[in-house]
Amino acid sequence: MTAATTSLSAIKPQIVPIALDEGQRGYDILIGAGLLDQSASFEGLPKAAAALIVSNETVAPLFLQRLQTQLAKQYARVDAVLLPDGEQFKDWASLNLVFDRLLETASDRKTVLFALGGGVIGDMTGFAAAVYMRGVPFVQVPTTLLAQVDSSVGGKTAINHPLGKNMLGAFYQPARVIADLDSLDSLPQRELSAGLAEVIKYGPIADAAFLDWIELNLDAMLARDKVALAYAVKRCCEIKAWVVGQDEREQGLRAILNFGHTFGHAIETGLGYGAWLHGEAVGCGMVMASDLSVRLGLMPAEFLPRMRSLIERAGLPVLGPALGAQRYLELMRVDKKAEGGAIRFVLVEGLGKAGMHAAPDDLVAQVLASHCA
Amino acid sequence: MTAATTSLSAIKPQIVPIALDEGQRGYDILIGAGLLDQSASFEGLPKAAAALIVSNETVAPLFLQRLQTQLAKQYARVDAVLLPDGEQFKDWASLNLVFDRLLETASDRKTVLFALGGGVIGDMTGFAAAVYMRGVPFVQVPTTLLAQVDSSVGGKTAINHPLGKNMLGAFYQPARVIADLDSLDSLPQRELSAGLAEVIKYGPIADAAFLDWIELNLDAMLARDKVALAYAVKRCCEIKAWVVGQDEREQGLRAILNFGHTFGHAIETGLGYGAWLHGEAVGCGMVMASDLSVRLGLMPAEFLPRMRSLIERAGLPVLGPALGAQRYLELMRVDKKAEGGAIRFVLVEGLGKAGMHAAPDDLVAQVLASHCA
Repeated sequence: MTAATTSLSAIKPQIVPIALDEGQRGYDILIGAGLLDQSASFEGLPKAAAALIVSNETVAPLFLQRLQTQLAKQYARVDAVLLPDGEQFKDWASLNLVFDRLLETASDRKTVLFALGGGVIGDMTGFAAAVYMRGVPFVQVPTTLLAQVDSSVGGKTAINHPLGKNMLGAFYQPARVIADLDSLDSLPQRELSAGLAEVIKYGPIADAAFLDWIELNLDAMLARDKVALAYAVKRCCEIKAWVVGQDEREQGLRAILNFGHTFGHAIETGLGYGAWLHGEAVGCGMVMASDLSVRLGLMPAEFLPRMRSLIERAGLPVLGPALGAQRYLELMRVDKKAEGGAIRFVLVEGLGKAGMHAAPDDLVAQVLASHCA
Repeated sequence: MTAATTSLSAIKPQIVPIALDEGQRGYDILIGAGLLDQSASFEGLPKAAAALIVSNETVAPLFLQRLQTQLAKQYARVDAVLLPDGEQFKDWASLNLVFDRLLETASDRKTVLFALGGGVIGDMTGFAAAVYMRGVPFVQVPTTLLAQVDSSVGGKTAINHPLGKNMLGAFYQPARVIADLDSLDSLPQRELSAGLAEVIKYGPIADAAFLDWIELNLDAMLARDKVALAYAVKRCCEIKAWVVGQDEREQGLRAILNFGHTFGHAIETGLGYGAWLHGEAVGCGMVMASDLSVRLGLMPAEFLPRMRSLIERAGLPVLGPALGAQRYLELMRVDKKAEGGAIRFVLVEGLGKAGMHAAPDDLVAQVLASHCA
């Protein structure tokens, strides 16, 4: 295991194909530098009279014009709607801004939506596309590390409900994912760290060697070494493609991608959406889930400090907010993986292998006591 | 061709199976008298800890307790949420009442929703089921003629947007449709007529012999002859099953089921949702679409008076509201079947056969001038 090579050949455009259940067309994830300025990235997309770019007030000044330039080559009308930025706006009111624009412009059933932004924009645009006229095509153009390695891939779309994160949504696949690594140059450091939480996630649940690689290359990624980031994005997408290809609708295996998310969603909902970034909550949630894996005897004791150290090095919080164990438990009981009121946690069963497990409330309370401020 | 037999054997429970695209399970439509009070109607439904009945303030006093009694045999918790009654409440605010209840009771991903009511309740419950936790099972228990012959079958779900009818929704199939003919006994006459509009629809688009049958048996249906209604519900469901089985997601053929709906949706949206019943708008819309079929030379002149007479006999309006041709055209340009701003009408091409056609605006304006108050 060596640190990522500095050869620029490693950041030539890569394509990770996503295969889907029978009866559905798969799609490609394009990963590379400068993709946003290359016509080739947009060739072969669904034909239509119009395209609508959905973005937010933070991302649009950086990339909107460039995307518009590319799309104008293919669509007679290219419109844009900008949503307010942040998890606290991942709701019906914001979604409705997209529908209002689509209907005001009499956009038809072939109109293609483009999600230009991070995870919130991607999830909302995908859901808008799933629902408008019962389904129009959409393309993910993720501009954050978190969206490039995780949320833009695999077709989970959603908005939040005050009582639960991502509770309203659809499984709805994009026509393509265009991950331009150059967009990471302008990413705030806090957002970069949040994205690293999802990168780290893939190691313990699916690929022990990738966990080793992350430990070796974390500093390079934090310093935005493009070669290291390119490899991380590609490897994460490969793992996600492998999982989603087997279980698109989360009947089983796919749930492992939610490692750290049961605790993490409770933090996000409990504090109010937007207080912590999603990746921050997932980072802290992975510390808790790692501890629970150890306490249930699934992993040796040294797994917890290893994970906590890595997550801390990534610039992520390792102590959760003091909501109280009862509140955490109450929030986690409305998690989508819960069944009949029993919380089901994704736990690590061996390096590179995860599964679903129930746990006694008092054990969960001990975990929370150990990892809350 | 004779009037419906009065033999009671004709109203023994009937099953119409719906076959779906590969990779999806089909489902059954149960049609019969007294189904709501028979345990057999509910056997084999998806297992879950809880069921939620969605109904409205008008329907619940008539049937809710009976459905609760049946469901209590299968689900440990049976809850109900009542929405306000009417097309004007087919919106996000009402839908959110369902989500609030589901989350307040920490309902999990296996919870089964039951739609108890007419088309509005069925469309909204189906959409809620499609979206809650990205999809939970649901069952249609249609209590109006319109819902039994059309809207509860085939998996189109939606809510309205102020700028367009059924603009936000999903294709999402129920686990079963339970059409109890006894529920038609208490249906207001205006609702019965509205349902007959959708019954009449199936004749000209798919089955010339059924059109003859409807003309012969219309008075019996208006008098609520159970044998005639049983046959009508069954035949409509058979035709719809045949169409949906070939084109679940309305890539082509399925659009014929929208005969009269392009004009009809414009009436509903233009007057404000709820002013006319959906079936009333469709009835009047079929008069307009029949005239357009004649004016485009697709049908002989006598087709228009035949359709108008039948629709009028059913107790439906045959003159549309005077919105003005420009407003009609503007409203129809946001119809889901429109493409690139061109309205596409479902027109009759021969008795029992329909297809999609464009039409010059001035011809459409002539049709509107002939059939508006």
